[in-house]
Amino acid sequence: MLGLVRVVRVPLRDRTYSILIGERLLSRLGAACRKLRLGRRCAIITDTNVAPLHATTVERSLKQAGFESFRITVPAGEPAKSLSQLEDCYNQLAARRMERSSFIVALGGGVVGDLAGFVAATYLRGLPFMQVPTTLLAQVDSSVGGKVAVNLDAGKNLVGAFYQPRLVLCDLTTLHTLPQRELRAGVAEVIKYGIIRDAQLFERLERQLDRLFALEPAVLGGVVSRCCEIKAEVVGQDETEGGLRAILNFGHTIGHAIENSFGYGRYLHGEAIAIGQVAAARLSQAVLGLSEAEAGRVEALLKAAGLPVEVRLTAAAETRLLRAMQLDKKVTGGDVRFVLAKRIGEVVWGQRVPAEAIRTVLRPPTTAQRSRGKAVCQP
Amino acid sequence: MLGLVRVVRVPLRDRTYSILIGERLLSRLGAACRKLRLGRRCAIITDTNVAPLHATTVERSLKQAGFESFRITVPAGEPAKSLSQLEDCYNQLAARRMERSSFIVALGGGVVGDLAGFVAATYLRGLPFMQVPTTLLAQVDSSVGGKVAVNLDAGKNLVGAFYQPRLVLCDLTTLHTLPQRELRAGVAEVIKYGIIRDAQLFERLERQLDRLFALEPAVLGGVVSRCCEIKAEVVGQDETEGGLRAILNFGHTIGHAIENSFGYGRYLHGEAIAIGQVAAARLSQAVLGLSEAEAGRVEALLKAAGLPVEVRLTAAAETRLLRAMQLDKKVTGGDVRFVLAKRIGEVVWGQRVPAEAIRTVLRPPTTAQRSRGKAVCQP
Repeated sequence: MLGLVRVVRVPLRDRTYSILIGERLLSRLGAACRKLRLGRRCAIITDTNVAPLHATTVERSLKQAGFESFRITVPAGEPAKSLSQLEDCYNQLAARRMERSSFIVALGGGVVGDLAGFVAATYLRGLPFMQVPTTLLAQVDSSVGGKVAVNLDAGKNLVGAFYQPRLVLCDLTTLHTLPQRELRAGVAEVIKYGIIRDAQLFERLERQLDRLFALEPAVLGGVVSRCCEIKAEVVGQDETEGGLRAILNFGHTIGHAIENSFGYGRYLHGEAIAIGQVAAARLSQAVLGLSEAEAGRVEALLKAAGLPVEVRLTAAAETRLLRAMQLDKKVTGGDVRFVLAKRIGEVVWGQRVPAEAIRTVLRPPTTAQRSRGKAVCQP
Repeated sequence: MLGLVRVVRVPLRDRTYSILIGERLLSRLGAACRKLRLGRRCAIITDTNVAPLHATTVERSLKQAGFESFRITVPAGEPAKSLSQLEDCYNQLAARRMERSSFIVALGGGVVGDLAGFVAATYLRGLPFMQVPTTLLAQVDSSVGGKVAVNLDAGKNLVGAFYQPRLVLCDLTTLHTLPQRELRAGVAEVIKYGIIRDAQLFERLERQLDRLFALEPAVLGGVVSRCCEIKAEVVGQDETEGGLRAILNFGHTIGHAIENSFGYGRYLHGEAIAIGQVAAARLSQAVLGLSEAEAGRVEALLKAAGLPVEVRLTAAAETRLLRAMQLDKKVTGGDVRFVLAKRIGEVVWGQRVPAEAIRTVLRPPTTAQRSRGKAVCQP
């Protein structure tokens, strides 16, 4: 039996597309592609974790709809977002004589989506592509909005494009095979949407976190749809991050720097931005007067989701991290700009923050400070 | 004394930009950039041939206008359009902490423009960039219209983007230092504009070829401007090659395959498309009834410009060349499509041509055929 399918539109004029959200959707990918006037051939880009779980279902669905597909499997994990992996994908597309009407299916998490999307954006100057995210993080965030990229040694996502998919298909059933750690990492982005745009979503997460982790269909479907709606609304207003779109980076400036300076792979993206969000909340207290109670709720919810909320740094690591921040794409005139919260549900972007304040929030509080903080958080 | 500056607009809505054409313009680059609301820092991407001739002039001009520039010099020649060179450029931009408001200046011929343009299109998901073409070919063709790309081993320009410059600055004076062979190669593209869109331009070239090669300012400025006008008009109607823009590829399907199957560097791009244009003219006779007289004029003009008009192929080389054609980006449903001429000044695109016909035109005519051909061409 096929469950409810929710549809969220991403409104971008001639590049408008739909996000389909529901259970057991993978087998409906072929039919969804049929409606999009595509060529007959496609490449499925996936990774070594996802391929054994879902690639056959996707291939069968495409075949039944009359498409001819072949599979490119990259190693699972962030290192796949490299220029050398990119080159390998290009060479495989060339070997298979992909044409401009051929299309790409990105089947996997954020890494696969970012890599496959950049391949699609640049091979033959652009092929149509479909996002089929199989992690919570990719479903609520990276598969929507057209940011695609690969990493350099010098930093994450330094090479990329704004290139929209033609379709996003979020099969909630795929989350049942997701490792718990990955699910938690996705919840970090879910919590972010509450902080930046929807206090009710944040409260709902405070109440229903257990049911979300239990993947209760009603809770999961509702939460994923709401996150996609928020992202679609923000991207529809500001596709290429001229302004508003920056709010999606709450917690990401420090988060990216953590991922970068610890080496990709030590922290998952969601874990790094959990730490980044707590740091951003503390900066928000200092710079924008976010209440200590609300900053405490941010930290408490992320902790309740089993996410790390602080990082222990040697002096050398701290320096490395601050330097990594300087390479962030949002840097203007040498200043690192932050997205900071006025309250839960409302943030502002482009906030200058002195380096000393960043250092302070990165240093874990002493036991005395911690218990004072706790006292304030408890009613 | 500064000469006349002609301005051609490329009409692309919010991405509209100007092509400035005139003598001794390099020293005016900084002032032109001042008008474009750019950040203070820029990278000049140039090559080992062009840097010693022109980089200092450009740097001085930028500095006088208040910009801070640094130079990235790549090896001269087609091999610079590689993924490894691309990576090197990215790493240099990262090392210099380039920001989203920073910009790129492409100073050189088509290779530099294509590489630097693709760097600009993808670094930090897109930086503003200026085309400063210093070859005839780049001035009349590759610097205008936003096609940027790098090569794969499997084929030329297989990886790229449509990414428009913010300004094109054609300094005619730079052509005085251009090797004769490069100048001839550029004339191959100039002749193409006559064939695809302007019979009067073609006739003018038949009359004034010597004065063009002597770089007489009036003739040179007129010809470069007219070519840019044609390209701007075509690109303005069809930026991403949905249809009309394909006509710019007259002679290129075979030309690219020649470059590819002989290895980049054996033939200059202009030389390869000279051969490709003669072949396309012969195919046009067979498929569209182009008159033998006009096909003869195409061949005669390219020959008069000192360009190759045929290629001797072993059977193995011919097979390689036909296979390379299958990788062309214009291939649809496995069919190689050609731009063919109805008459000089009017072409049609998307023409299917049987492989046997391609083989025939690639085989140099026998002496008997050649003299019959000549008899027809002579009045």
